[in-house]
Amino acid sequence: MRDFSTDHRWLSINTATVRRQRGQDWGLLEILDACAARGIRAVSPWRDQVAAAGLQATAARLRAHGLALSGYCRGGMFTYTDAASRQAARDENRHALDEACTLGAPCLVLVVGALPGALAGRPAHRDLAGARQQVAEEMAELLAEARTRGMPLAIEPLHPMYAADRACVNTLEHALDLCDVLDPGRSGALGVAVDAYHVWWDPKLQDQIARAGGSRILAFHVCDWLVPTTHLLEDRGMMGDGVIDLPRLRGWVEDAGFAGYSEVEIFSRANWWLRDGGEALDTCIVRHRRCV
Amino acid sequence: MRDFSTDHRWLSINTATVRRQRGQDWGLLEILDACAARGIRAVSPWRDQVAAAGLQATAARLRAHGLALSGYCRGGMFTYTDAASRQAARDENRHALDEACTLGAPCLVLVVGALPGALAGRPAHRDLAGARQQVAEEMAELLAEARTRGMPLAIEPLHPMYAADRACVNTLEHALDLCDVLDPGRSGALGVAVDAYHVWWDPKLQDQIARAGGSRILAFHVCDWLVPTTHLLEDRGMMGDGVIDLPRLRGWVEDAGFAGYSEVEIFSRANWWLRDGGEALDTCIVRHRRCV
Repeated sequence: MRDFSTDHRWLSINTATVRRQRGQDWGLLEILDACAARGIRAVSPWRDQVAAAGLQATAARLRAHGLALSGYCRGGMFTYTDAASRQAARDENRHALDEACTLGAPCLVLVVGALPGALAGRPAHRDLAGARQQVAEEMAELLAEARTRGMPLAIEPLHPMYAADRACVNTLEHALDLCDVLDPGRSGALGVAVDAYHVWWDPKLQDQIARAGGSRILAFHVCDWLVPTTHLLEDRGMMGDGVIDLPRLRGWVEDAGFAGYSEVEIFSRANWWLRDGGEALDTCIVRHRRCV
Repeated sequence: MRDFSTDHRWLSINTATVRRQRGQDWGLLEILDACAARGIRAVSPWRDQVAAAGLQATAARLRAHGLALSGYCRGGMFTYTDAASRQAARDENRHALDEACTLGAPCLVLVVGALPGALAGRPAHRDLAGARQQVAEEMAELLAEARTRGMPLAIEPLHPMYAADRACVNTLEHALDLCDVLDPGRSGALGVAVDAYHVWWDPKLQDQIARAGGSRILAFHVCDWLVPTTHLLEDRGMMGDGVIDLPRLRGWVEDAGFAGYSEVEIFSRANWWLRDGGEALDTCIVRHRRCV
């Protein structure tokens, strides 16, 4: 297992982690500058942040700093209620693929979607199995597009508390079952993003990480699960502040063959966290050395 | 599949559902009176409610109304940090067993516990696998006690969002694995409580319900998953207000051989809900006919 305690060469920052400071958005280009100034070598940006900063400007800034990507967030949201919404999702996903290529991402991360309309509080139906069927079908369609571009897709199973509104793939086992169906040859075109926050609770986690192997694990995300957790989306904890045994989990992932970046992805409403983006990055570096 | 639409003979009320009204506790004996007055035939009381009302007084009131129990809540909380806390948990569970016998419960429901201290916000460690090992060992010990009393134990897998602080058994599959280890002969002494709120998201749910069969399914609980869900514990929805396909789930449970009560268990902070316990019961009856 790699020693993370003396440097942060394997730390990546998911840029949503520091998207807000001092009550306003922190621009992506400034975030990239702040990461580079701290010797951080990789980031994973979100599409809306890239759109606000400009795709070409983002690509140029990444190059100027020699910053790598550990992933691109995100594609997916596959479920639909009619032909128009299906096509809209397909179009969005092709744009996401093209952007990932332009930015040189190692993979496009997929949050697959769930019951259509649920994220807006108006679920169109209760057919979770049907939503899962749509996800499988649309992912097959996107995979063909991704193969032509040479851009791997990483299915991110989300915590079961998001099954209704964000992603109806909620275990690593389910994600790997999809991989086996859609890419039985383990071509490298399809894999998973293992986010500690979403999967830490799973009694089958160690076995499923081993099943995934290095060829299927395309990304590894860290933060922590707080007790108590007071908000379903924006109460993720800084590594070390919660109950996830991150070194053990990283050990499993590395034993499986993963040797990439460890990406810090924290959504938090905590006041201290939102005060100063630079301080937040400094804390990520310290905790990544100490607690991951 | 049984027709629930014309009467509520298979409705049971988990008495925590109406434990509060008009800003104060509603006494268990009054809850029993209110249920009986509405033709509700079964309830599932919580230990603290029984303790406040008195065990013998509760038993007498149940008899007077001819009310059955669909379960008794709850035993479990098996995990410990030292010999003293282990013994305290064992003592509590034996008391719970004895009370369940006195009240004529069909099973003692088990919420198995998780990381010691986490429920109070001070987790003693991060060893979830170790906590699961303690659960298996202590459950074996309690099962021996339960067998001598003829009181079945029902493991209730809780939603994964409670893995840190309430129960580290979070899937029906995990609960059934424990049943197979501890009671391979399917003696009837050990089974599961299937609560729709905790398990609805699981892609393996239908298969695992079939695996459980009628001999392992000792209780069936219903409420609904709201979108958005704004609180991890007290934002359960009334049946029909959320996204769980309850009739489909009940169909799976009945196909497996379960023919018992359908128990409404709702924890909610909603103002309308906490206003009048009698109205809440009336709503349970209406929605149970229409949406379960």
